[in-house]
Amino acid sequence: MTSLEGQLHRCAINTATLGHREPLDKTLDRIARAGFGGIAPWRHEVEAIGAKAAGRQVRALGLSVTGYCRSAYFAAADPAERRANMGANIAALDDAVELGARCFVLVVGGVQGVKDGVVGARAQVQDGIGALYLEARKRGMPLAIEPLHPTYASDRSVVNTISQAITLCESIAPDDPAMLGLAVDVYHCWWDPDLAASIALAGHAGRIMGYHVCDWLLDTQDRLMDRGMMGDGIVDLRGFRRLIEDAGYTGMVEVEIFSAQRWWKVAQDEVLAVCARRLQSQC
Amino acid sequence: MTSLEGQLHRCAINTATLGHREPLDKTLDRIARAGFGGIAPWRHEVEAIGAKAAGRQVRALGLSVTGYCRSAYFAAADPAERRANMGANIAALDDAVELGARCFVLVVGGVQGVKDGVVGARAQVQDGIGALYLEARKRGMPLAIEPLHPTYASDRSVVNTISQAITLCESIAPDDPAMLGLAVDVYHCWWDPDLAASIALAGHAGRIMGYHVCDWLLDTQDRLMDRGMMGDGIVDLRGFRRLIEDAGYTGMVEVEIFSAQRWWKVAQDEVLAVCARRLQSQC
Repeated sequence: MTSLEGQLHRCAINTATLGHREPLDKTLDRIARAGFGGIAPWRHEVEAIGAKAAGRQVRALGLSVTGYCRSAYFAAADPAERRANMGANIAALDDAVELGARCFVLVVGGVQGVKDGVVGARAQVQDGIGALYLEARKRGMPLAIEPLHPTYASDRSVVNTISQAITLCESIAPDDPAMLGLAVDVYHCWWDPDLAASIALAGHAGRIMGYHVCDWLLDTQDRLMDRGMMGDGIVDLRGFRRLIEDAGYTGMVEVEIFSAQRWWKVAQDEVLAVCARRLQSQC
Repeated sequence: MTSLEGQLHRCAINTATLGHREPLDKTLDRIARAGFGGIAPWRHEVEAIGAKAAGRQVRALGLSVTGYCRSAYFAAADPAERRANMGANIAALDDAVELGARCFVLVVGGVQGVKDGVVGARAQVQDGIGALYLEARKRGMPLAIEPLHPTYASDRSVVNTISQAITLCESIAPDDPAMLGLAVDVYHCWWDPDLAASIALAGHAGRIMGYHVCDWLLDTQDRLMDRGMMGDGIVDLRGFRRLIEDAGYTGMVEVEIFSAQRWWKVAQDEVLAVCARRLQSQC
C-alpha cells in the first residue's frame, strides 16, 4: 500500500467537513492554501456563486474536483417530486461539467412513504438512475452511486451495500464502467461482511470513482451529524485503504465529516490541519 | 399467509417492551392476563427471582418462552472479559433449561477495542459460538444467533445480516439446525437487499427459531432506544411475515420494542393493549 505521508496533493476535502460556514470561494482558497489537491463541493454552495465562477477558481487554484455533491432523491412517494428531482439532477450535471468534476455523486433516497416500502423504493431508484445515466452519458459526466449505511435506508438511501451498487451499475450500464460507478465511503461500508470481495469486484470492474474517509465513533450520538475524525473511532482505515488500492483505485482520498457538535465548531483552518495530520498518520 | 386476528396465543411479548419497570413475576401475570401466548424474559429479571421460580410460574400460566435474552458478548478486547462472558453464558444456558425456553438468544458483541477491528471481532465471535454450542448441545438448549442492524456493529454486534448468521451456523453446526439457528428481528433486517433470499435459505434449512417485530421510525432519534410500535414506521411488516412463513416458520410472533421516551412511559397494560391491536391489524 502507498503511504500518504507528504502526499496531501493526493488528498481532498469535502466541504461538508468544514460545516458550510462561509461562501465557497473562501473555502476553495482555504483548502488550496492548506495544501490539499482536491475538493468536493455541494450544490447549494456552487449555485450560490455560480458554477462557471467556481470552475474558474478551481482551475486557477489547481484543485481537482473529486465529486460534486449530490443528487436529489430518485425515490419519492410523490411522482411530481420525482420529476422535479430528475430536473434538478440534470441541471446539476451541467454544473458538474462546468466544475470539471470527476463524477456526480448519487445519494438515491430512502423509503419515506414510497408504496411497497423498501422494495418499491429500490425499483424507483433503478429507474431513476437509468434515466439520469442517459443524460450523464450525453454530457460525459460520470455518475458515482454512493451506498449509504443501512441506518439511512428509511430516510436517505435504499442503496446500502457496495454489492447492491455494483448490481445497479451492471444492470444499467454493463459495458460502461467509466460512466457509471461507485463512491465508497468508509463510514457507510466498514461493517459489511462482504467488504473485501465487494471492493475487489467493484475495483476490478473499474467502477470505483471516489474514496471517502472519516471514522465511526464507538458511541455515536446522532445518526447523521456525529461522524468522527480519522483515528477517533473504530474503523480499520489502513486495512480499508489497502483493499481499495489492491482493487486498483488510484484516485484521491477525500475527507467527509458531518460533525455538528464537534468539528463544525472548530475554526476551519484548524480542522484542515487536523485532517492533514490524521490522513498521514491514520489512513 | 395466516392471519393474526384472534390469534394472540400465537404472539409473544419480549419483556423489554414494557421497560423492565417491575419484578418479572408481575410482568408474567400481566402478559398472560392480556392473552398473549408467549414471553421472552431477560437474564437480570430471571436472576432476580430465580430461574426455577420463574419456570414454575411460566408453566402454571401456560406461557411459552420464545427466547431467553441474551448472551454476554463473545467479542471483547480483554481475554479475561471473554472468559467471564463465556462462564456467564454457560450459566445462562442452565437457566434457559429451567425456563423451558425455545432458545437462548445470542447477541454477539461489537468491535469495541478488539484487535484487527471488525475482522478480528468476527473471528472471536466464530470461536465463541463454537465453544458455547458444545455446551448448549449437552443441555439440549438451542442457540439463536440474532443479527443486529449494522448501526450496532461498533458496540453490540458484528453479526449484521441473516446471511452472515447462516454462514456461522453452517460452519459451526452444519448438520444440527435444531440446535444452532437464528432469531430474525424486522428492526435489524428490514433494509437487507438480500432479505427474501436470506430468509428463504434460513427457513428451508430449518434454522429460524424466533421472529421479532416492532417498526423503524422514519426519523429515529436514538440508535438503541427509539424503536417504533408496529404500524408507526416504514417497515412492510406483512411482507416480512409472508417471507418468514413462506420459508416454513410456524413459531410465535414476538414484540420487542426499546422505547425509552415513548412506550416505556406508558402504563404497561396500555402498552400490551396497543401491541395486541397492532399485531392483529399491522403485522
